[in-house]
Amino acid sequence: MDIEIWFDFASNYSYLSVMRIEELARARGVPVAWRPFLLGPVFKSIGMDNSPFVTQKLKGAYVWTDMERQCRKYALGWTRPASFPRRSILPARIATLADGQPWQAEFIRRVMRLNFVDDHDIEDSAALSQILDSLGQDGQAILAAAESDDVKQALRARTAQAQQRGVFGAPTFFVGDEMFWGNDRLDDALDLAAGQR
Amino acid sequence: MDIEIWFDFASNYSYLSVMRIEELARARGVPVAWRPFLLGPVFKSIGMDNSPFVTQKLKGAYVWTDMERQCRKYALGWTRPASFPRRSILPARIATLADGQPWQAEFIRRVMRLNFVDDHDIEDSAALSQILDSLGQDGQAILAAAESDDVKQALRARTAQAQQRGVFGAPTFFVGDEMFWGNDRLDDALDLAAGQR
Repeated sequence: MDIEIWFDFASNYSYLSVMRIEELARARGVPVAWRPFLLGPVFKSIGMDNSPFVTQKLKGAYVWTDMERQCRKYALGWTRPASFPRRSILPARIATLADGQPWQAEFIRRVMRLNFVDDHDIEDSAALSQILDSLGQDGQAILAAAESDDVKQALRARTAQAQQRGVFGAPTFFVGDEMFWGNDRLDDALDLAAGQR
Repeated sequence: MDIEIWFDFASNYSYLSVMRIEELARARGVPVAWRPFLLGPVFKSIGMDNSPFVTQKLKGAYVWTDMERQCRKYALGWTRPASFPRRSILPARIATLADGQPWQAEFIRRVMRLNFVDDHDIEDSAALSQILDSLGQDGQAILAAAESDDVKQALRARTAQAQQRGVFGAPTFFVGDEMFWGNDRLDDALDLAAGQR
């Protein structure tokens, strides 16, 4: 069975899973289905105005220490973003448009690195276009297509689907109907998916 | 270096760590220091009226699924408590009084099982007395001592210390000044403690 990874480009714990999932999934023969969505509307629908890492001071302070340690453990680059959470609508639209394309996964990882390694605005068209070009795509054309009504609607529908399935944070993994929340559950979710092949 | 485990008997994720820590710590030669405290005053001081598993419906629903899966993974008994979070002041006082006693760790585990396996009131004097008696102690005498001003004050001081150190949930581990939050960080905390022997 495949594993769905529901993520937001603004989410730091999503960064950890996005960077790790393909290698771990490949080792178990599990296909990965990418599910970009927007955490903002999900948070709002459950009465939260912002990330808990912003609204809860002690937890917020802890999270950046935790991220440093986790990135060291997983040998991932890490820079605490000067702006958090960053607006992530444009790259989420591009990742939605890229569904089923062979460059989707690498695009997603590059945008995550733009946010959490380069500490750069992830709605910067020039930076996104450059990433797309470097993946052999037509950056300008894809940026234009990402602003089409179809793509906007597809991302809205994806986000609504997250709410319907009980998603309340990111990353969230689904293996069939079994939901797993957080980077710390990636291995458990993969084990379940591998056992159900 | 030793590992401090800060926990509340009402906390379900504390249950997972309390049951697992001694064996994992022994394998690494790391001494365990038990730090019972009360999560209620800590939550209140950061503007939370109750456990987030009660106030946040979606997260609350997820947590019980997660607990089932985690207990299966760790081969621990599990019954979803009919009452959550249970009042945990009396056993926290006894565990505080037991500091440095050879029966402290086993008392703590028995009370956790009373809550999360037997689904029983953990401020029930008869049940607590029975646990103490079965550990070769004088249950009635210890229950009386647990209500002394010294013990009450010691638990209040411990809880105040948790707040001063930035604790915002349980379980929380300290290795020196390094704080780790959550059962999912137990191994990382132990690895740090083992590396600093």
